Amino acid sequence: MNPIQKLTDYFAEFPGIGPRQARRFVYYLLTRNQNHIDEIAKLMGTLKSQVRICTSCYRFFQSENRDATLCDICSSRNRDNALLVIVSRDVDLENIERAHVHSGKYFVLGGGVPILEKEPEKRIRSNELLRTVQTRAEKGELKEIILALNATPEGENTAEYVESLLKPITSSSNIKVSHLGRGISTGTELEYSDADTIKNALNNRN
Amino acid sequence: MNPIQKLTDYFAEFPGIGPRQARRFVYYLLTRNQNHIDEIAKLMGTLKSQVRICTSCYRFFQSENRDATLCDICSSRNRDNALLVIVSRDVDLENIERAHVHSGKYFVLGGGVPILEKEPEKRIRSNELLRTVQTRAEKGELKEIILALNATPEGENTAEYVESLLKPITSSSNIKVSHLGRGISTGTELEYSDADTIKNALNNRN
Amino acid sequence: MNPIQKLTDYFAEFPGIGPRQARRFVYYLLTRNQNHIDEIAKLMGTLKSQVRICTSCYRFFQSENRDATLCDICSSRNRDNALLVIVSRDVDLENIERAHVHSGKYFVLGGGVPILEKEPEKRIRSNELLRTVQTRAEKGELKEIILALNATPEGENTAEYVESLLKPITSSSNIKVSHLGRGISTGTELEYSDADTIKNALNNRN
Amino acid sequence: MNPIQKLTDYFAEFPGIGPRQARRFVYYLLTRNQNHIDEIAKLMGTLKSQVRICTSCYRFFQSENRDATLCDICSSRNRDNALLVIVSRDVDLENIERAHVHSGKYFVLGGGVPILEKEPEKRIRSNELLRTVQTRAEKGELKEIILALNATPEGENTAEYVESLLKPITSSSNIKVSHLGRGISTGTELEYSDADTIKNALNNRN
Repeated sequence: MNPIQKLTDYFAEFPGIGPRQARRFVYYLLTRNQNHIDEIAKLMGTLKSQVRICTSCYRFFQSENRDATLCDICSSRNRDNALLVIVSRDVDLENIERAHVHSGKYFVLGGGVPILEKEPEKRIRSNELLRTVQTRAEKGELKEIILALNATPEGENTAEYVESLLKPITSSSNIKVSHLGRGISTGTELEYSDADTIKNALNNRN
Repeated sequence: MNPIQKLTDYFAEFPGIGPRQARRFVYYLLTRNQNHIDEIAKLMGTLKSQVRICTSCYRFFQSENRDATLCDICSSRNRDNALLVIVSRDVDLENIERAHVHSGKYFVLGGGVPILEKEPEKRIRSNELLRTVQTRAEKGELKEIILALNATPEGENTAEYVESLLKPITSSSNIKVSHLGRGISTGTELEYSDADTIKNALNNRN
Repeated sequence: MNPIQKLTDYFAEFPGIGPRQARRFVYYLLTRNQNHIDEIAKLMGTLKSQVRICTSCYRFFQSENRDATLCDICSSRNRDNALLVIVSRDVDLENIERAHVHSGKYFVLGGGVPILEKEPEKRIRSNELLRTVQTRAEKGELKEIILALNATPEGENTAEYVESLLKPITSSSNIKVSHLGRGISTGTELEYSDADTIKNALNNRN
Repeated sequence: MNPIQKLTDYFAEFPGIGPRQARRFVYYLLTRNQNHIDEIAKLMGTLKSQVRICTSCYRFFQSENRDATLCDICSSRNRDNALLVIVSRDVDLENIERAHVHSGKYFVLGGGVPILEKEPEKRIRSNELLRTVQTRAEKGELKEIILALNATPEGENTAEYVESLLKPITSSSNIKVSHLGRGISTGTELEYSDADTIKNALNNRN
């Protein structure tokens, strides 16, 4: 098969990309100069070797320091160890950081648990999570775990699983487990809100 | 001007209707039989005389009983007088009722207060609201007022105005004033949430 | 049933209107003053009596002259009798007039013929069309019939039916029958055009 | 700057990709295995060397035969040399091929001429086009040139420029120059068509 089609097929596997846009990517590259393309190819090839996974929150990170095992957040002295926000993916963590409202730490599950999943422990970093929470619990520094998961069926299912998974530790070390507040989000008009959102907004009134 | 155009212009003033759809309304009517049209016209003409405004919550209502001054909710013995939900419009009240989560009473402001409005008291039923709340406060039955307004600039501005308007009564009779919970609404994915929503969701975690 | 709900149901039958917007229409009317509502109701009630159907093109029209049987287009001396544009509905005729590109006459079918329709002659003004075309043909003034129908399956099916219906007259009086040009419409980008449109655009190149 | 951000910035330059989706691409790659990434990187790096530009129609193509200078269409004996379709980009050519309606040859301009462009000759392959058309004209095989450009201001401006550019050759060798048919495209409803499209559809009726 010719390289244009082959590369189109690879790009078509990128998240949110269809065959047509994938093909446009190829033609876009064909109009770049070779150095530009080589730079991208080199970055891609070395990406995994340069990017490490934080041994504490398991997010992807990069550091000049070859021996660094912790990301900038986990190694920071200014972040509160009493608060741990659990998210599904790196992009969620980054979006929360963008809001500048969380001063604590994170843990990235690396995915979610679909409803009716037989082996939920394989869909997310279950053991790593248990280890991290256990360690922090023993240090007696962890006070609250915030489950910051999507308000979708999969997100809610993931929250349930994580909560039950951590139950033994959280109850024995009485660590509070909380969920993101549900209610009306910015811009919402009551007239168009679904019953579920109105119910949450009333129950969580303040 | 010919009746087709005249009627088109009237329909074009209906909420959310442009001249083209207004014109289609007219042609739609031209294809109905006269009885059908007369029925609609009669209903429209008698609408205001048949529909009354509840003297307690100020929503529109209709009753076989000519002397009725209270809507079915305000006259019901099964609704909790301790809870008063304040909304902008009848449609908001109806949408909350659809959710079957509020067992108390309502008050319909009849509109909202735009930002920088010079005479906010004229944009909503200020005096009627004061009177209603005063009466209920004196009866000592009112415990909490819930401001159920849109999560929009106008909605928030309306909430602020209503809160300050009621301050003298609520503080002296210590009536709690609460707002709908802000947070992530059903279906929301964290990755696409704005900073403001994430902030609210974290602050209102539970 | 109460008048608010009754009127909501009627409005919900208007083209393109759902129950929610229908309800908003009712509340909108409740905020108008009675005179305004009465004016609309009166216009609706007298609409059909004031609006006549042109005995030549069968479009709806209105005239001060009680005896007028022809619309302004059909009675105009400046319109070319050699060209007859056949459309499905009044709105199509009006949209073509808006483009100021047709100097001839019109005929409004009053609908379309769905695919597989058993009795197509009942879906459109078949007899009226035959009469109109026959008359014009006998006067020897009619040179071309332009079928201006939607580029949809129903539109194409309607065109086929009308063409076969008129065949006897058009062939004997050799009246040309043409269809709107098919091709790329204003704003179209080739990259996103369907095969059918590209085919038509190439075949109808000029 | 770290490789995640660097690669995100490169992906954000891809056609139709914003910073968020670009970031998702990077995380997507981080979850692939190294071989998969290397394969993509290799394909990208060797793309330009493996893909050639046809010396006749100037589309991108690939061939096992190292010495091939013509794409499969230009080297085919089954394509009609009398017809030349001129398009802006490779994707346009591919979309026309998908429609299986053109049995002739192509020429890819490699872009378009924006309105008011001072140096149109630099925006498209002007010299290459002149050479190709000149050669074919001398062979006496070329009968018609079809300008298959977008129905947009830039597309129409490009058509005008190309037509004037080729005028000397086309008139002397009396080669017909045609444009894609303009009219209503598949699925169009007359009621929603703009005046320009209705005008074209009436003028190009057939």
